Amino acid sequence: MEIVVLRLGHRLERDKRVTTHIGLVSRALGAQGLLLAAEDKGVERSITRVAKRWGGEFFVKTGVRWRDELRNWQKAGGKVCHLTMYGANLHEVIDEIREAAEDVRTPILVVVGAEKVPFEVYETADWNIAIGNQPHSEIAALAIFLDHLQRGQELTARFEHAELEIVPSRRGKEVVVKEEE
Amino acid sequence: MEIVVLRLGHRLERDKRVTTHIGLVSRALGAQGLLLAAEDKGVERSITRVAKRWGGEFFVKTGVRWRDELRNWQKAGGKVCHLTMYGANLHEVIDEIREAAEDVRTPILVVVGAEKVPFEVYETADWNIAIGNQPHSEIAALAIFLDHLQRGQELTARFEHAELEIVPSRRGKEVVVKEEE
Repeated sequence: MEIVVLRLGHRLERDKRVTTHIGLVSRALGAQGLLLAAEDKGVERSITRVAKRWGGEFFVKTGVRWRDELRNWQKAGGKVCHLTMYGANLHEVIDEIREAAEDVRTPILVVVGAEKVPFEVYETADWNIAIGNQPHSEIAALAIFLDHLQRGQELTARFEHAELEIVPSRRGKEVVVKEEE
Repeated sequence: MEIVVLRLGHRLERDKRVTTHIGLVSRALGAQGLLLAAEDKGVERSITRVAKRWGGEFFVKTGVRWRDELRNWQKAGGKVCHLTMYGANLHEVIDEIREAAEDVRTPILVVVGAEKVPFEVYETADWNIAIGNQPHSEIAALAIFLDHLQRGQELTARFEHAELEIVPSRRGKEVVVKEEE
């Protein structure tokens, strides 16, 4: 499944941690990359540093123009999923989205906004999806969406070429540090 | 199902937004309250303001002592679930936790830490649970945990006495503003 996350409305300083969380959640829960509609090299560094140590392939691209990204994504046959508390309930739409996403020719762009999202995003998106219709957190919404889209399988995925790997444990902390090959 | 969230390691200013997200996620995804092991009236106000407008019952209690809370919770027959990337994989343990939680005599305390969590928490918890063994976000971990615990049913819950209610919509924004009764 090809999944990329587009983060809109990132404000320098104020959104640093929230956008870093969005990047780390994207990577940990099976997306291949993050597009950030702002320039913030600090956020990019934080995420790529984690990706290098913990393995797998994950890209971060900053300074993208969201309108171009949406248009090009759809032109190439991909689908756009916009997460918003005003959208259709996840349970209503997840089956159609998953069906689309299971076709390798249909990459999924997940759009995660901040406070004000331009109405054009609502109109352009193939799906506007609410992870519950209550105000909470774009980080939480992204996590639950990725988890439902992949039926929870992302939680046991292995990451290639990791320097660090955790051994799951009911009590305590166990980390394997790997030698460079 | 009785669920309360305990937030550890909150640092003033730095964690304001992340802890507010944790409170809002707790409320939106079916928990009854948030215990905060720090004094932060700003965070408390932000969360209770949302709870008042969007309905339901949700409490926030600041300045709690985590050691006392864990001890009293377990003494009263409740179970403690600590979310940590070092823990057992969610899929391995969620069935036993749900079984415990479905008994009304077993309230669930979900512990969400920040960077450094005292080892005593790992030892005291009934379960240490990893939402994937990768670094990402305590907000995301909490969201996925609450969602799996309640089998996604929390996403369609109604909130009583709301001033505002969203009508789910595939395109656009529809909000119902209710008169005071």
